[in-house]
Amino acid sequence: MSNVKDYKDMDLSAYFLGPKGENVELFKELTNELIDDHVGYRKNFNPEDAESISEDEKASPEFQKAVVNMKNVMHELSRKLRSGSIPWPTAGRYWAQMDNETLLPSILAYNFAILWNGNGVAWAGSPASTLMEKEVGLDLAKLSGFDDNGWGYVATDGSIANVTALWLARNTASIPLAIKEVCPELVEGKSEWELLNMSVKESLDLLDKSGDKKNDVKARSARSGKNLDKLGKWLVPSTMHYSWRKALDITGVGEDQLVVLPVDEHYHIDIKKLEEIIQDLTDKHIPVLGVVAVVGSTEEGAIDHVDQIVELRKKFNEQGVNFTIHVDAAYGGYGRATYLDEEGNFIPYENLKDEFKKYGIFTENNQFLKKDVYNAYKAMSEVDSVTVDPHKMGYVPYDAGGLAIKDNREKDTLTYYAPYAFQEGVAVPASIGQFTLEGSKAAGSAAAVWAAHRVLPLNISGYGRLVARTLYAARRFNDFVDGMKFEVNGKTIVSHAVYDPDFNMVDWVYKEEGNDSLKAMNDLTQAVFEYTSTSKGGDMYSLDLLTSDSNFGTDNYGDAPLSFIKSLGIDGEEYHKEGKLEILRASCMTPWCYDDETFDYWAPRIKEALQKKFELIAEHENIL
Amino acid sequence: MSNVKDYKDMDLSAYFLGPKGENVELFKELTNELIDDHVGYRKNFNPEDAESISEDEKASPEFQKAVVNMKNVMHELSRKLRSGSIPWPTAGRYWAQMDNETLLPSILAYNFAILWNGNGVAWAGSPASTLMEKEVGLDLAKLSGFDDNGWGYVATDGSIANVTALWLARNTASIPLAIKEVCPELVEGKSEWELLNMSVKESLDLLDKSGDKKNDVKARSARSGKNLDKLGKWLVPSTMHYSWRKALDITGVGEDQLVVLPVDEHYHIDIKKLEEIIQDLTDKHIPVLGVVAVVGSTEEGAIDHVDQIVELRKKFNEQGVNFTIHVDAAYGGYGRATYLDEEGNFIPYENLKDEFKKYGIFTENNQFLKKDVYNAYKAMSEVDSVTVDPHKMGYVPYDAGGLAIKDNREKDTLTYYAPYAFQEGVAVPASIGQFTLEGSKAAGSAAAVWAAHRVLPLNISGYGRLVARTLYAARRFNDFVDGMKFEVNGKTIVSHAVYDPDFNMVDWVYKEEGNDSLKAMNDLTQAVFEYTSTSKGGDMYSLDLLTSDSNFGTDNYGDAPLSFIKSLGIDGEEYHKEGKLEILRASCMTPWCYDDETFDYWAPRIKEALQKKFELIAEHENIL
Repeated sequence: MSNVKDYKDMDLSAYFLGPKGENVELFKELTNELIDDHVGYRKNFNPEDAESISEDEKASPEFQKAVVNMKNVMHELSRKLRSGSIPWPTAGRYWAQMDNETLLPSILAYNFAILWNGNGVAWAGSPASTLMEKEVGLDLAKLSGFDDNGWGYVATDGSIANVTALWLARNTASIPLAIKEVCPELVEGKSEWELLNMSVKESLDLLDKSGDKKNDVKARSARSGKNLDKLGKWLVPSTMHYSWRKALDITGVGEDQLVVLPVDEHYHIDIKKLEEIIQDLTDKHIPVLGVVAVVGSTEEGAIDHVDQIVELRKKFNEQGVNFTIHVDAAYGGYGRATYLDEEGNFIPYENLKDEFKKYGIFTENNQFLKKDVYNAYKAMSEVDSVTVDPHKMGYVPYDAGGLAIKDNREKDTLTYYAPYAFQEGVAVPASIGQFTLEGSKAAGSAAAVWAAHRVLPLNISGYGRLVARTLYAARRFNDFVDGMKFEVNGKTIVSHAVYDPDFNMVDWVYKEEGNDSLKAMNDLTQAVFEYTSTSKGGDMYSLDLLTSDSNFGTDNYGDAPLSFIKSLGIDGEEYHKEGKLEILRASCMTPWCYDDETFDYWAPRIKEALQKKFELIAEHENIL
Repeated sequence: MSNVKDYKDMDLSAYFLGPKGENVELFKELTNELIDDHVGYRKNFNPEDAESISEDEKASPEFQKAVVNMKNVMHELSRKLRSGSIPWPTAGRYWAQMDNETLLPSILAYNFAILWNGNGVAWAGSPASTLMEKEVGLDLAKLSGFDDNGWGYVATDGSIANVTALWLARNTASIPLAIKEVCPELVEGKSEWELLNMSVKESLDLLDKSGDKKNDVKARSARSGKNLDKLGKWLVPSTMHYSWRKALDITGVGEDQLVVLPVDEHYHIDIKKLEEIIQDLTDKHIPVLGVVAVVGSTEEGAIDHVDQIVELRKKFNEQGVNFTIHVDAAYGGYGRATYLDEEGNFIPYENLKDEFKKYGIFTENNQFLKKDVYNAYKAMSEVDSVTVDPHKMGYVPYDAGGLAIKDNREKDTLTYYAPYAFQEGVAVPASIGQFTLEGSKAAGSAAAVWAAHRVLPLNISGYGRLVARTLYAARRFNDFVDGMKFEVNGKTIVSHAVYDPDFNMVDWVYKEEGNDSLKAMNDLTQAVFEYTSTSKGGDMYSLDLLTSDSNFGTDNYGDAPLSFIKSLGIDGEEYHKEGKLEILRASCMTPWCYDDETFDYWAPRIKEALQKKFELIAEHENIL
């Protein structure tokens, strides 16, 4: 039973069902094997026990009526899903949302786990998956750059993970104030300002020091409902996911505490402005509860300068100012695997190109070779918590979000006990639910993530190669759309990529040559979306190209899109007048368009589909 | 294509895989059919498109290496789940947690949905499941007794549903204060006390009246972080699920606002004391944010007097006092189907016995024929919101919790928009995620609940019959353990049921005859748990009987267990000295032990297993 595995040489194509179901026989073989494994377990648990459904009962008309009823419902379900699902598994026609093919082993694991119906809330409900979740939680922590003191879990999704991150920050930041109430001797001489400017580590050290008064301290923390208004501001870039507003609402910290950070023309937090904002708050004696950096923004795939934010915190520490840093890497988190060698070390920048070559990762203009991107990923190890969703770039089916924290003690600020499920002080090998917003949960999520991580190691040999495939697809797609021309009705339409991608998200627009109106460009871009979606493109299943759209509004994005708009010859004033830049948006998650041959197969087909859309637009819309 | 279905005559046994996998061939047939349906879709979406994985590639050593890797991981997964899962599917040996066999159509639907990997957050991510979730959300609302103005959704679990219920109550209760700020003319002359004592309907009417200032009002509501400390107390019985403390924590309402309501000897909220508590708060001018009633408590299956709480609210309305009522029916909610006729009407009490007979539901000492239980279920239609979990008595796999609200407008107090997923004012046929704590989520949950509800109608012909099976099992198990005797080491041990069940949960204890020490009884009961679990019973798979335990502590339960303890001849003082009553706890969810023949098959086997445990206890523990 050799354990040596040469992951580098394994063909990633075996891990997917395939756009045309190419691996269906393998999938069925394993599906049926796992069903047999499960039924074998049922049969042999106290094997002398009688069956509960006899052959006679199965032959009865009442039983057959029920079977017919069930089959009818299954057929209706099949019709509904076939007509109302998104055809993301196509290799080259889906350039839209963050949704694609998922890993075959994860599908199998999820399906298999459903048969056992373990409740992942506690050891007593699902020992196996609880251990697996503990394992993959640590995987996510290590992927984020944390050491064995880290901790993580499989959340329902990134929104819940973000909410939990703020909840953790809130409760932890309130600990010093609770200590002052319960064990004042531990913080003697500290001002309230000092108590509100402690690091996560300092707060947790204080909680540890409170000894047998720990539960009293926790009871006086923010969970009591006290001091929420003292904890300060939550700083999030304008590229943030909408869940941050929800997080501020649900946690009672309040949307009034939100400070939206401006981003620069690359859609990264403007570090200079961030510094000014924090300095201004400090001057006003308003604490900063935390700063969120985004690694793979929802609309742009932009990767904030995590390293510079970490540096900025150090700088402010000298003034006695401290705050939590959370990285929302729901989308981009798995990208960090690309920089980890097979021993889990972050690859030195000077070796990166060679390592990429060694593992078959392209090196011409790879966005992960940008020093900025490299530095941002590297610095994640110095932040306090990270959202990283297996159901995005982990290629695991929904639901599988993820949260990782640097200091596993922080989870205790949320602890809850249920007498029937987990008892304080009773040792079990692992326990998850007492630290999470969720209670009961499917064992399937943990099993699916576990299977994915075991098949594909979280380093350059596994996920690194898979993520690189999509970076390549994004690079190709970006270069393909940037400058592509169409002739319709005697007019020339040119598409323009909005920025140079940090990750695998491409945003682009369509502009009529010679027509320098932003409104016209927005309308045309919007029209292309309508004809490449069911809005005006017809039935889902008849579409030959799918995109998604979004827009950068002045209210949220400020002047960030201005330099792009101006570069197209459009007057910047128009942006303020129109109030937005309309864009098309493709998360290039397809694992198939990574090589020349494949992309060259799809490129003319995509172009042909687009040409048809412009002809339809010219015919039906009054804009060309 | 006839639509007439005689659900009454369908054999429920066809809807489960079966304790010994009796229906495995049917399951495999449908599994493979659905996989083919899915692959057919992939192949025929733009059917001229090339495959992405060639036969040559599949024959390559790199591909085969990956297949071997994947198979190894699957085998390891299978070993882990076979050795670390709970054998709940057994018909008669699992008398423990709220976990059992789930419906075959739901397993199939979940598995099938995973292949499509729809994201249930929004129409754009999964049109089919979004529509299904809208449909089953309304199912849950109607099951709870709400009309077409109701709304519901499939939450991750009951904890998230409870958190959301408090979040809704919090935001809604804060609307009148926000109106006072933004549109003072709408509440002219109202005192703060009056504003804090409005019904959900009154608050939502005000929000409607604010017209184009609606978003401003919402921005000034509790989501801003303001006024949280003004909203008052949250009253929950001592039988509450632990998630209520978590809900108070996360929402920022704060655990300081929790008032734990005492329960009577039947583990129901003591209505007289509830009235005193509310009167006392009113006298002190402290608002009541809400009262939670439990329908099917986690430890006892107790069903609170919802009707009397509704009446009490009416009584307090006369003093100008108002509050939300939430029913936590996570466990017991599906029981309400037993009282609904095939047209969805609540069956008049005088017809109940006849209807039960007509649908093959037993009528001798059925706990659902208790007038108290009947009235409680009936009155659910008058409360504001209900937690009801398909993954409990809906026999749907995890995760599938549920929340239903009476006035669908209330969900708007939580609204969030994501530009790429849902836009304000853009009409789509259905939208769920903008109203929920969760963002991205598996389409599988909605599909699984949908399939379950279509196979088994939410009335006496479907779920009613299924729930009744478990009530019968609980009744038999209760009567079986109550008074059962064992002879060990010359000592006689008698088991006693702790209360007469309202639902399908049975709690019981073991007492040595003649030994009237509570400590001894607690120790013996605890020892039985240890030998009927992996604690001391050996490997999971070798167990011949499984139970779960819990305890009623003086800190939470007050004097509720006293009359039971005294009835066994134990001095009541001992309860205060020991601090708890240790119990065994069986959620009798097995769908198999409903008839005489089956129960008579299992009864001697359970008794024999217990006899062996007592012999082991006598041998190894110093307590017999």
